[in-house]
Amino acid sequence: MPDSRLSRQIEFLAELDKLKHVLRRTMVIGESRLENSAEHSWHLGVMAALLAEYAPEQVDMERTLTMLLIHDVVEIDAGDTFAFDDAAMADKEERERRAAERLFGLLPSDQAARLRGLWDEFEAGTTPEARFANALDRFHALLQNVHNRGGTWKRHGVTRDQVLSRMEPIREGAPGLWEYVVRTVDDVMRDA
Amino acid sequence: MPDSRLSRQIEFLAELDKLKHVLRRTMVIGESRLENSAEHSWHLGVMAALLAEYAPEQVDMERTLTMLLIHDVVEIDAGDTFAFDDAAMADKEERERRAAERLFGLLPSDQAARLRGLWDEFEAGTTPEARFANALDRFHALLQNVHNRGGTWKRHGVTRDQVLSRMEPIREGAPGLWEYVVRTVDDVMRDA
Repeated sequence: MPDSRLSRQIEFLAELDKLKHVLRRTMVIGESRLENSAEHSWHLGVMAALLAEYAPEQVDMERTLTMLLIHDVVEIDAGDTFAFDDAAMADKEERERRAAERLFGLLPSDQAARLRGLWDEFEAGTTPEARFANALDRFHALLQNVHNRGGTWKRHGVTRDQVLSRMEPIREGAPGLWEYVVRTVDDVMRDA
Repeated sequence: MPDSRLSRQIEFLAELDKLKHVLRRTMVIGESRLENSAEHSWHLGVMAALLAEYAPEQVDMERTLTMLLIHDVVEIDAGDTFAFDDAAMADKEERERRAAERLFGLLPSDQAARLRGLWDEFEAGTTPEARFANALDRFHALLQNVHNRGGTWKRHGVTRDQVLSRMEPIREGAPGLWEYVVRTVDDVMRDA
Protein backbone atom coordinates (compact mmCIF):
# COMPACT_ATOMS: atom_id res chain seq x y z
CA MET A 1 0.00 0.00 0.00
CA PRO A 2 1.79 3.17 -1.14
CA ASP A 3 0.11 5.23 1.56
CA SER A 4 0.90 3.10 4.55
CA ARG A 5 3.25 5.69 6.06
CA LEU A 6 0.73 8.48 5.62
CA SER A 7 -2.05 6.19 6.87
CA ARG A 8 -0.18 5.60 10.11
CA GLN A 9 0.45 9.30 10.57
CA ILE A 10 -3.21 10.09 9.98
CA GLU A 11 -4.34 7.34 12.33
CA PHE A 12 -2.12 8.80 15.06
CA LEU A 13 -3.42 12.32 14.41
CA ALA A 14 -7.03 11.14 14.56
CA GLU A 15 -6.34 9.23 17.78
CA LEU A 16 -4.90 12.40 19.28
CA ASP A 17 -8.27 14.09 18.84
CA LYS A 18 -9.24 12.30 22.06
CA LEU A 19 -7.00 14.61 24.06
CA LYS A 20 -9.73 17.24 23.56
CA HIS A 21 -11.92 15.13 25.84
CA VAL A 22 -9.41 14.79 28.69
CA LEU A 23 -10.43 17.27 31.38
CA ARG A 24 -8.00 18.83 33.84
CA ARG A 25 -8.76 20.16 37.31
CA THR A 26 -8.05 23.73 36.28
CA MET A 27 -10.76 25.90 34.81
CA VAL A 28 -10.60 28.14 31.80
CA ILE A 29 -10.54 31.78 32.84
CA GLY A 30 -14.05 32.82 33.75
CA GLU A 31 -14.66 29.40 35.32
CA SER A 32 -17.37 28.38 32.90
CA ARG A 33 -15.88 24.90 32.45
CA LEU A 34 -12.82 22.74 33.06
CA GLU A 35 -9.90 23.05 30.69
CA ASN A 36 -9.00 20.11 28.46
CA SER A 37 -5.47 18.88 27.88
CA ALA A 38 -5.38 19.77 24.18
CA GLU A 39 -6.11 23.45 24.67
CA HIS A 40 -3.79 23.43 27.71
CA SER A 41 -0.99 22.12 25.48
CA TRP A 42 -1.67 24.86 22.95
CA HIS A 43 -1.45 27.51 25.66
CA LEU A 44 1.90 26.10 26.83
CA GLY A 45 3.25 26.37 23.29
CA VAL A 46 2.44 30.06 23.10
CA MET A 47 3.95 30.55 26.55
CA ALA A 48 7.19 28.91 25.42
CA ALA A 49 7.39 31.18 22.39
CA LEU A 50 7.04 34.26 24.62
CA LEU A 51 8.83 33.35 27.84
CA ALA A 52 12.08 31.76 26.63
CA GLU A 53 14.01 34.75 27.94
CA TYR A 54 13.36 33.54 31.51
CA ALA A 55 15.11 30.21 30.98
CA PRO A 56 18.63 29.98 32.43
CA GLU A 57 20.21 29.29 29.07
CA GLN A 58 19.26 29.25 25.41
CA VAL A 59 16.73 26.53 24.65
CA ASP A 60 16.13 24.91 21.27
CA MET A 61 12.66 26.22 20.56
CA GLU A 62 11.64 23.62 17.97
CA ARG A 63 12.39 20.83 20.43
CA THR A 64 10.68 22.68 23.26
CA LEU A 65 7.53 23.36 21.26
CA THR A 66 7.27 19.81 19.95
CA MET A 67 7.81 18.44 23.45
CA LEU A 68 5.06 20.65 24.85
CA LEU A 69 2.64 19.74 22.08
CA ILE A 70 2.95 16.02 22.86
CA HIS A 71 3.78 16.04 26.59
CA ASP A 72 0.22 15.21 27.67
CA VAL A 73 -0.96 12.83 24.93
CA VAL A 74 -0.48 9.82 27.21
CA GLU A 75 -3.50 11.14 29.15
CA ILE A 76 -5.67 9.76 26.34
CA ASP A 77 -5.20 6.36 27.97
CA ALA A 78 -3.97 7.28 31.44
CA GLY A 79 -6.24 10.24 32.19
CA ASP A 80 -5.16 13.50 33.78
CA THR A 81 -3.64 12.85 37.20
CA PHE A 82 -4.23 15.66 39.69
CA ALA A 83 -0.82 16.63 41.03
CA PHE A 84 -2.05 16.70 44.61
CA ASP A 85 -3.72 13.28 44.53
CA ASP A 86 -1.04 11.10 46.16
CA ALA A 87 -2.84 7.80 45.52
CA ALA A 88 -3.25 8.48 41.80
CA MET A 89 0.30 9.82 41.52
CA ALA A 90 1.64 6.48 42.83
CA ASP A 91 0.98 4.51 39.65
CA LYS A 92 0.96 7.46 37.24
CA GLU A 93 4.36 6.58 35.80
CA GLU A 94 3.38 3.02 34.92
CA ARG A 95 0.01 4.01 33.44
CA GLU A 96 1.61 6.71 31.32
CA ARG A 97 4.46 4.48 30.15
CA ARG A 98 1.95 1.94 28.81
CA ALA A 99 0.04 4.75 27.10
CA ALA A 100 3.21 6.02 25.46
CA GLU A 101 3.96 2.52 24.12
CA ARG A 102 0.56 2.26 22.52
CA LEU A 103 0.16 5.80 21.20
CA PHE A 104 3.60 6.48 19.77
CA GLY A 105 3.55 2.90 18.47
CA LEU A 106 0.87 3.96 16.00
CA LEU A 107 3.46 6.06 14.12
CA PRO A 108 6.07 5.05 11.55
CA SER A 109 9.06 3.85 13.54
CA ASP A 110 11.31 6.86 12.95
CA GLN A 111 8.65 9.28 14.17
CA ALA A 112 7.62 6.97 17.01
CA ALA A 113 11.22 7.02 18.22
CA ARG A 114 11.52 10.79 17.93
CA LEU A 115 8.30 11.64 19.78
CA ARG A 116 8.81 8.93 22.38
CA GLY A 117 12.30 10.31 22.93
CA LEU A 118 10.94 13.82 23.47
CA TRP A 119 8.30 12.52 25.85
CA ASP A 120 10.88 10.53 27.84
CA GLU A 121 13.09 13.61 27.92
CA PHE A 122 10.24 15.75 29.27
CA GLU A 123 9.50 13.20 31.96
CA ALA A 124 13.16 12.81 32.93
CA GLY A 125 13.83 16.56 32.98
CA THR A 126 17.43 16.03 32.01
CA THR A 127 17.84 18.81 29.42
CA PRO A 128 17.33 22.60 29.53
CA GLU A 129 14.39 22.18 27.12
CA ALA A 130 12.69 19.61 29.36
CA ARG A 131 13.26 21.68 32.48
CA PHE A 132 11.95 24.82 30.80
CA ALA A 133 8.90 22.96 29.42
CA ASN A 134 8.15 21.50 32.82
CA ALA A 135 8.50 24.93 34.44
CA LEU A 136 5.94 26.32 31.99
CA ASP A 137 3.56 23.47 32.77
CA ARG A 138 3.66 24.47 36.44
CA PHE A 139 3.53 28.18 35.62
CA HIS A 140 0.40 27.71 33.53
CA ALA A 141 -1.43 26.23 36.53
CA LEU A 142 -0.44 29.33 38.48
CA LEU A 143 -1.70 31.71 35.79
CA GLN A 144 -5.05 29.92 35.59
CA ASN A 145 -5.35 30.05 39.39
CA VAL A 146 -4.50 33.75 39.52
CA HIS A 147 -7.71 34.37 37.63
CA ASN A 148 -9.90 32.22 39.85
CA ARG A 149 -8.19 33.36 43.08
CA GLY A 150 -6.62 29.95 43.72
CA GLY A 151 -9.97 28.25 43.24
CA THR A 152 -8.66 24.91 41.96
CA TRP A 153 -6.28 24.59 44.88
CA LYS A 154 -8.65 25.82 47.58
CA ARG A 155 -11.45 23.58 46.32
CA HIS A 156 -9.17 20.58 46.76
CA GLY A 157 -7.76 21.70 50.12
CA VAL A 158 -4.24 22.29 48.82
CA THR A 159 -2.05 24.48 51.06
CA ARG A 160 0.28 27.33 50.17
CA ASP A 161 3.29 25.16 50.98
CA GLN A 162 2.05 22.35 48.73
CA VAL A 163 1.57 24.82 45.89
CA LEU A 164 5.03 26.30 46.34
CA SER A 165 6.54 22.83 46.40
CA ARG A 166 4.68 22.01 43.17
CA MET A 167 6.07 25.23 41.63
CA GLU A 168 9.64 24.37 42.64
CA PRO A 169 10.75 23.20 39.14
CA ILE A 170 10.28 26.79 37.94
CA ARG A 171 13.19 27.86 40.12
CA GLU A 172 15.58 25.83 37.99
CA GLY A 173 13.74 25.63 34.65
CA ALA A 174 12.76 29.30 34.35
CA PRO A 175 14.49 31.15 37.20
CA GLY A 176 13.54 34.52 35.77
CA LEU A 177 9.94 33.77 36.73
CA TRP A 178 10.62 32.62 40.29
CA GLU A 179 10.26 35.94 42.09
CA TYR A 180 6.89 36.48 40.40
CA VAL A 181 5.83 32.96 41.36
CA VAL A 182 6.54 33.36 45.08
CA ARG A 183 4.89 36.75 45.23
CA THR A 184 1.83 35.54 43.33
CA VAL A 185 1.35 32.31 45.27
CA ASP A 186 1.46 34.35 48.47
CA ASP A 187 -1.12 36.71 47.07
CA VAL A 188 -3.46 34.05 45.69
CA MET A 189 -3.22 31.72 48.69
CA ARG A 190 -3.32 34.38 51.41
CA ASP A 191 -6.64 33.15 52.72
CA ALA A 192 -5.96 29.43 52.27
CA MET B 1 7.92 48.70 37.73
CA PRO B 2 10.57 45.98 37.25
CA ASP B 3 7.95 43.50 36.10
CA SER B 4 6.27 45.58 33.43
CA ARG B 5 7.63 43.42 30.59
CA LEU B 6 6.53 40.23 32.31
CA SER B 7 3.19 41.83 33.20
CA ARG B 8 2.51 42.56 29.54
CA GLN B 9 3.43 39.02 28.55
CA ILE B 10 1.16 37.57 31.21
CA GLU B 11 -1.70 39.89 30.26
CA PHE B 12 -1.42 38.70 26.65
CA LEU B 13 -1.31 35.03 27.70
CA ALA B 14 -4.38 35.49 29.91
CA GLU B 15 -6.22 37.27 27.09
CA LEU B 16 -5.41 34.34 24.80
CA ASP B 17 -7.36 32.04 27.11
CA LYS B 18 -10.45 33.39 25.31
CA LEU B 19 -9.53 31.42 22.19
CA LYS B 20 -10.79 28.36 24.10
CA HIS B 21 -14.27 29.84 23.81
CA VAL B 22 -14.19 30.47 20.05
CA LEU B 23 -16.14 27.66 18.40
CA ARG B 24 -15.49 26.45 14.87
CA ARG B 25 -17.93 24.75 12.51
CA THR B 26 -16.06 21.46 12.65
CA MET B 27 -16.79 18.91 15.32
CA VAL B 28 -14.37 16.96 17.44
CA ILE B 29 -14.25 13.33 16.32
CA GLY B 30 -17.29 11.56 17.71
CA GLU B 31 -19.40 14.68 17.10
CA SER B 32 -20.16 15.31 20.75
CA ARG B 33 -19.44 19.03 20.42
CA LEU B 34 -17.92 21.70 18.19
CA GLU B 35 -14.17 22.14 18.22
CA ASN B 36 -12.69 25.34 19.61
CA SER B 37 -9.88 27.28 17.97
CA ALA B 38 -7.35 26.70 20.77
CA GLU B 39 -7.49 22.91 20.56
CA HIS B 40 -7.61 23.18 16.75
CA SER B 41 -4.35 25.17 16.85
CA TRP B 42 -2.76 22.51 19.08
CA HIS B 43 -3.74 19.80 16.62
CA LEU B 44 -2.19 21.74 13.75
CA GLY B 45 1.06 22.02 15.67
CA VAL B 46 1.30 18.25 16.07
CA MET B 47 0.42 17.84 12.39
CA ALA B 48 3.25 20.15 11.38
CA ALA B 49 5.73 18.18 13.48
CA LEU B 50 4.68 14.95 11.74
CA LEU B 51 3.89 15.96 8.16
CA ALA B 52 6.79 18.25 7.22
CA GLU B 53 8.04 15.62 4.80
CA TYR B 54 5.10 16.42 2.49
CA ALA B 55 6.11 20.07 2.06
CA PRO B 56 7.85 20.88 -1.24
CA GLU B 57 11.00 22.11 0.47
CA GLN B 58 12.53 22.20 3.91
CA VAL B 59 10.52 24.41 6.26
CA ASP B 60 11.84 26.13 9.38
CA MET B 61 9.88 24.21 12.00
CA GLU B 62 10.20 26.72 14.84
CA ARG B 63 8.70 29.43 12.65
CA THR B 64 6.01 27.09 11.35
CA LEU B 65 4.99 25.94 14.83
CA THR B 66 4.90 29.45 16.25
CA MET B 67 2.88 30.65 13.27
CA LEU B 68 0.36 27.85 13.72
CA LEU B 69 0.04 28.45 17.46
CA ILE B 70 -0.92 32.10 16.91
CA HIS B 71 -2.60 31.98 13.48
CA ASP B 72 -6.15 32.02 14.88
CA VAL B 73 -5.83 34.31 17.92
CA VAL B 74 -7.47 37.17 16.02
CA GLU B 75 -10.70 35.17 16.28
CA ILE B 76 -10.88 36.28 19.93
CA ASP B 77 -12.21 39.58 18.59
CA ALA B 78 -13.22 38.69 15.05
CA GLY B 79 -14.84 35.29 15.66
CA ASP B 80 -14.37 32.22 13.53
CA THR B 81 -15.44 32.91 9.96
CA PHE B 82 -16.86 29.88 8.17
CA ALA B 83 -14.92 29.50 4.96
CA PHE B 84 -18.07 28.93 2.90
CA ASP B 85 -19.95 31.98 4.24
CA ASP B 86 -19.36 34.52 1.46
CA ALA B 87 -20.96 37.44 3.30
CA ALA B 88 -18.85 36.95 6.41
CA MET B 89 -15.72 36.37 4.34
CA ALA B 90 -16.16 39.80 2.71
CA ASP B 91 -15.08 41.83 5.76
CA LYS B 92 -13.04 39.10 7.45
CA GLU B 93 -9.73 40.73 6.53
CA GLU B 94 -10.62 44.08 8.07
CA ARG B 95 -12.08 42.54 11.24
CA GLU B 96 -9.02 40.36 11.73
CA ARG B 97 -6.60 43.19 11.04
CA ARG B 98 -8.16 45.27 13.81
CA ALA B 99 -8.01 42.27 16.14
CA ALA B 100 -4.33 41.75 15.38
CA GLU B 101 -3.63 45.42 16.21
CA ARG B 102 -5.27 45.12 19.59
CA LEU B 103 -4.07 41.68 20.62
CA PHE B 104 -0.43 41.79 19.56
CA GLY B 105 -0.37 45.38 20.87
CA LEU B 106 -0.68 43.97 24.38
CA LEU B 107 2.85 42.55 24.12
CA PRO B 108 6.24 44.22 24.59
CA SER B 109 7.05 45.86 21.27
CA ASP B 110 9.73 43.39 20.13
CA GLN B 111 7.44 40.42 20.66
CA ALA B 112 4.44 42.27 19.23
CA ALA B 113 6.44 42.86 16.05
CA ARG B 114 7.59 39.24 15.83
CA LEU B 115 4.16 37.65 16.30
CA ARG B 116 2.41 40.22 14.13
CA GLY B 117 5.01 39.52 11.47
CA LEU B 118 4.33 35.79 11.64
CA TRP B 119 0.59 36.37 11.49
CA ASP B 120 0.93 38.69 8.48
CA GLU B 121 3.17 36.10 6.84
CA PHE B 122 0.60 33.36 7.39
CA GLU B 123 -2.13 35.52 5.91
CA ALA B 124 -0.02 36.55 2.92
CA GLY B 125 1.22 33.02 2.23
CA THR B 126 4.46 34.31 0.79
CA THR B 127 6.91 31.86 2.37
CA PRO B 128 7.20 28.04 2.34
CA GLU B 129 6.36 28.04 6.07
CA ALA B 130 3.18 30.07 5.54
CA ARG B 131 2.09 27.94 2.60
CA PHE B 132 2.75 24.72 4.51
CA ALA B 133 0.93 26.04 7.61
CA ASN B 134 -2.05 27.08 5.50
CA ALA B 135 -2.10 23.69 3.79
CA LEU B 136 -2.26 21.99 7.20
CA ASP B 137 -5.12 24.25 8.26
CA ARG B 138 -7.11 23.04 5.24
CA PHE B 139 -5.97 19.43 5.70
CA HIS B 140 -7.16 19.43 9.32
CA ALA B 141 -10.69 20.30 8.20
CA LEU B 142 -10.53 17.33 5.85
CA LEU B 143 -9.36 14.94 8.57
CA GLN B 144 -12.15 16.04 10.92
CA ASN B 145 -14.68 15.60 8.12
CA VAL B 146 -13.38 12.15 7.23
CA HIS B 147 -14.55 11.03 10.65
CA ASN B 148 -18.00 12.55 10.41
CA ARG B 149 -18.47 11.55 6.75
CA GLY B 150 -18.35 15.15 5.52
CA GLY B 151 -20.92 16.19 8.10
CA THR B 152 -19.80 19.81 8.51
CA TRP B 153 -19.88 20.37 4.76
CA LYS B 154 -23.09 18.50 4.03
CA ARG B 155 -24.88 20.24 6.91
CA HIS B 156 -24.01 23.58 5.37
CA GLY B 157 -24.79 22.55 1.79
CA VAL B 158 -21.20 22.74 0.57
CA THR B 159 -20.49 20.88 -2.66
CA ARG B 160 -17.59 18.61 -3.61
CA ASP B 161 -16.22 21.28 -5.96
CA GLN B 162 -16.33 23.93 -3.24
CA VAL B 163 -14.47 21.61 -0.89
CA LEU B 164 -11.82 20.82 -3.48
CA SER B 165 -11.39 24.50 -4.21
CA ARG B 166 -10.96 25.17 -0.48
CA MET B 167 -8.33 22.40 -0.35
CA GLU B 168 -6.41 23.88 -3.29
CA PRO B 169 -3.63 25.49 -1.16
CA ILE B 170 -2.54 21.99 -0.17
CA ARG B 171 -1.46 21.34 -3.76
CA GLU B 172 1.28 23.95 -3.41
CA GLY B 173 1.91 24.02 0.36
CA ALA B 174 2.07 20.25 0.94
CA PRO B 175 1.98 18.60 -2.49
CA GLY B 176 2.81 15.19 -1.02
CA LEU B 177 -0.68 15.17 0.51
CA TRP B 178 -2.59 16.18 -2.63
CA GLU B 179 -3.31 12.73 -4.04
CA TYR B 180 -4.73 11.65 -0.68
CA VAL B 181 -6.83 14.83 -0.54
CA VAL B 182 -8.49 14.32 -3.91
CA ARG B 183 -9.19 10.65 -3.25
CA THR B 184 -10.58 11.39 0.22
CA VAL B 185 -12.77 14.30 -0.80
CA ASP B 186 -14.26 12.11 -3.51
CA ASP B 187 -14.90 9.39 -0.98
CA VAL B 188 -16.35 11.63 1.73
CA MET B 189 -18.48 13.73 -0.61
CA ARG B 190 -19.70 10.92 -2.84
CA ASP B 191 -23.28 11.37 -1.72
CA ALA B 192 -23.26 15.17 -1.53
